[in-house]
Amino acid sequence: MNLSRQPPSAALVLQTLLTQGPLTRAELGRRAGLSSGAVTKVSAPLLDDGWITELGPSGDRQPGRPATLVGVRPERARFIGIKITSDELIGMLVDLTAAPLTTHRTPLRSRDVGTVVRAVARLVRTLSGPAGKGKGESGPAVHSIGVTVSGDVDGLSGTVRYSPFLDWHGVRLAALVEEATGIPAVIDNDVRALTVAEQWFGAGVGLSSFALVTVGAGVGCGMSVEGRVISGAYGVSGELGHLPVGSGDRVCTCGNTGCVEAVASTQAIVDQVQEQTGDADLSLADAVRLARAGDATARAVFTRAGRALGLGIASVANLIGPERIIISGEGVAAYDLFADEIRRAFADRAFGAAARCELVVRPLPFETWARGGAAMAAHRLFAPLPGRSAGATGH
Amino acid sequence: MNLSRQPPSAALVLQTLLTQGPLTRAELGRRAGLSSGAVTKVSAPLLDDGWITELGPSGDRQPGRPATLVGVRPERARFIGIKITSDELIGMLVDLTAAPLTTHRTPLRSRDVGTVVRAVARLVRTLSGPAGKGKGESGPAVHSIGVTVSGDVDGLSGTVRYSPFLDWHGVRLAALVEEATGIPAVIDNDVRALTVAEQWFGAGVGLSSFALVTVGAGVGCGMSVEGRVISGAYGVSGELGHLPVGSGDRVCTCGNTGCVEAVASTQAIVDQVQEQTGDADLSLADAVRLARAGDATARAVFTRAGRALGLGIASVANLIGPERIIISGEGVAAYDLFADEIRRAFADRAFGAAARCELVVRPLPFETWARGGAAMAAHRLFAPLPGRSAGATGH
Repeated sequence: MNLSRQPPSAALVLQTLLTQGPLTRAELGRRAGLSSGAVTKVSAPLLDDGWITELGPSGDRQPGRPATLVGVRPERARFIGIKITSDELIGMLVDLTAAPLTTHRTPLRSRDVGTVVRAVARLVRTLSGPAGKGKGESGPAVHSIGVTVSGDVDGLSGTVRYSPFLDWHGVRLAALVEEATGIPAVIDNDVRALTVAEQWFGAGVGLSSFALVTVGAGVGCGMSVEGRVISGAYGVSGELGHLPVGSGDRVCTCGNTGCVEAVASTQAIVDQVQEQTGDADLSLADAVRLARAGDATARAVFTRAGRALGLGIASVANLIGPERIIISGEGVAAYDLFADEIRRAFADRAFGAAARCELVVRPLPFETWARGGAAMAAHRLFAPLPGRSAGATGH
Repeated sequence: MNLSRQPPSAALVLQTLLTQGPLTRAELGRRAGLSSGAVTKVSAPLLDDGWITELGPSGDRQPGRPATLVGVRPERARFIGIKITSDELIGMLVDLTAAPLTTHRTPLRSRDVGTVVRAVARLVRTLSGPAGKGKGESGPAVHSIGVTVSGDVDGLSGTVRYSPFLDWHGVRLAALVEEATGIPAVIDNDVRALTVAEQWFGAGVGLSSFALVTVGAGVGCGMSVEGRVISGAYGVSGELGHLPVGSGDRVCTCGNTGCVEAVASTQAIVDQVQEQTGDADLSLADAVRLARAGDATARAVFTRAGRALGLGIASVANLIGPERIIISGEGVAAYDLFADEIRRAFADRAFGAAARCELVVRPLPFETWARGGAAMAAHRLFAPLPGRSAGATGH
C-alpha cells in the first residue's frame, strides 16, 4: 500500500493514533473529526496493510458490546534520523512511533560534502544492519532517512542552501544521500525537524500552537502554528537568534549587532567570560563552574544571555501567541544560570494575555536531534513533499 | 441551504471562486485540489441555492465543446462591517465578494458600552435600510455583521477582553450587537479582520503567507501563515508595536520602554516633535509639514520611527518568513518620511533568504477598516466559529 496515495482522512487516522492512541473507533472519530462510517472505511486498508491493529476490548464499561481499542503497529516501519554537526554525525533508528531503537555517533574528520555523505551512508548501514535490529530480530527495511543540518535548508528541493557551521552553499544533500544509500531521504533544518518531533511525540502533543527555542552553538526557534510547523516562504523562519533585541556592543556571526545569538550562544558566552577574566583558555564548563561558584563576572554574562533570550522569547509570544514555549538545546544544561532572567524579561515584555504562554524547560539528550530527523521522515508518510521527494517517500 | 453544514469542499469551491473566479470547472478543480467529479457534486447545491452561477462559455479555444465559466453571485448575500474607534463608528455594507455598496461614519459621543451598542444598531439600520439597497433594489437581508475593535478580542466567545482606546474590559460585544440588531454578529481584533480582508480580496490573495503591518494610532500586525490568519492561543498575536527593538528612552503606553509603538505611533511622533520644538500645540499634520519642508528635528523623529518599524518588520520576517509584508494604516500617508529608513533597517536585519520578502506599501482608505469587519463576517460563512457564533452565523 502506498500510504501517500490514501485519502487525507487515512493519514489523519494514523496520525491521531500515533500521537494519541490507542483509542476506540468512536473516540478516534471524535478526535479526528470523522464520522464512524469514515473511520471504518479508511481504517480497513490501514488494518490490511499492518499499519494499525485491533488491541482487544477497551476498559470502558459501556452498555452493549465492549468497544475495541485500535492502535498503531510500531514495528510496521523504521526510519533513520541523522543530524550533521560541524564535527560529528548523530544517528538514530526509530520505529513508526519514533521510539528509539538504536543510536550511534560518528566523528567527522572533514566537512567536505563527499566525505560527509560517505560517512552518512556508513552510519545508515551501521544503524540498519544486524545491530540495528535487536537480538535475532529481522524487522522491516528502513522506510526513509531524515537528515538535518542547521542553517537555511530547502526541504522541498532537498537542498542545503547555506549552512554556516558546515560552510556549505547549495548542496543537493537529499539526492546525494539517496544515491549513496539507495534509501529515500528527506532533509530539513535541524530545529524545524526537532519541532516536528516535539509536535508528534513530545511536549507539543495536542497543542494547536507552540514554539521550541533551542539554545546552544546557535539560538534557534521552531514554531507550530495551528498544528503546522512553519517553514518560511523562502526557507527562513524562527531566526530568534537574530532578533535585534540586544545592545549594540557585540558583533554577531551574521555581522550585525544586538542579535540574541551575539550574547547567548555557547561561543558568545565563552568569549565574554574569556574577555572579562582575561583567561583565553577558559571553556564553557569553566564558565559554568565559575558562575555556579558565585563569580560575579561570569554570573553577569549568563544574566545578560538570559535577558536577551527572554526578550526574544517574549517577541515570539507577542507575534505568534503560542500556548507553550519549550526551551531546550545543549545550553539548557546551564539553565539554572539564566532561568530567572529569562522569566523576568519574558514577564516584563509579554504583552497582555500573551504572558499566559507557558514556559517549559526541557533538557533533551543530544540524540534527540537525530530523532528529529527520523520523526520528520516519518511525518512525510502523511505529508509527502510535492515533486522530488513525493516520489522519494512513496515506496 | 445552511452553508456551514455543507462539506468542507463546498466552502473551498466557493472560496476559490470568490478569490480567483470566474473559472472553468476544470480550472476550479485544479486550484481547489478537487477531482472534476467532486467539483460537480459540491457545486450542485451551491448553484441551486444561488451562491454561484454559470456565466457562459470561457474564451479559451479548446478542442471539443467550450468549457463554461462558473462564478459567484455577488448579490447572493450582504454583510455589514463596523469598526469602532475611540471617537467614531465606520460602517460599510458589502456584497458576497466584499465589494463596498455603501459606507457611513457616525461620531461617538461616549465610549460607554450601551451608547456604543445603540449607535452600532442605528448605523446597521442606516446601512441596511433603503439607502443601503441602491435605486429601487430590494437586495437580500443582511446575513451577518462583523464588528472590529483594537485590542485583545476573543472572537470565539465574542468578548472584547481589553481595549485600551475604549477602556473596555470583558465586554460581551457580539451578543450585545446581536440583541440590539437582531442580526448575527461576530467580532474580532481590527488588524486581524483587515488581514482577513487582504487575504481574501486584497494584496494577500494567492499568497500562502503574508503579514500586514498597520501604522497609525497604534502599530499592529496581522499574519497569515500557510493560508490561515493566526489569532494567538490566548487572543494576542501580531503585537509588533510591543517588540522590544527600540532604545530605552521613551515609555510606551504599555508601561515598557523600547517598544516600536513608543516611537512610531501617531501620538509618539507628535509627542516627540512637540518636545523637540517646544510647541505643545503642534499636530501630526504640522509635524509632517515640518519634516517635508526639511526641518532636521522633525525629520529625525520620522527617521527614528522608520528604524523601529523596520526592525519590527525584520523581526516578523525572521520569525515567520512571509512571502510579502504589506505596510498600511493611516500613518502610511507620511510614508515618504520613513520609507528609506524602514527599508534600510529591514535590509540590515532580515536574515539570509528572509530578506527576499517583498515589502509593499498600500495606502488603504479609512473605510477599509470597516470592510475588514464585513470580510470577516463573510469569512465565517466558510469557517464558522464553534459554540456561540456557529449558531449565530448559521442562518
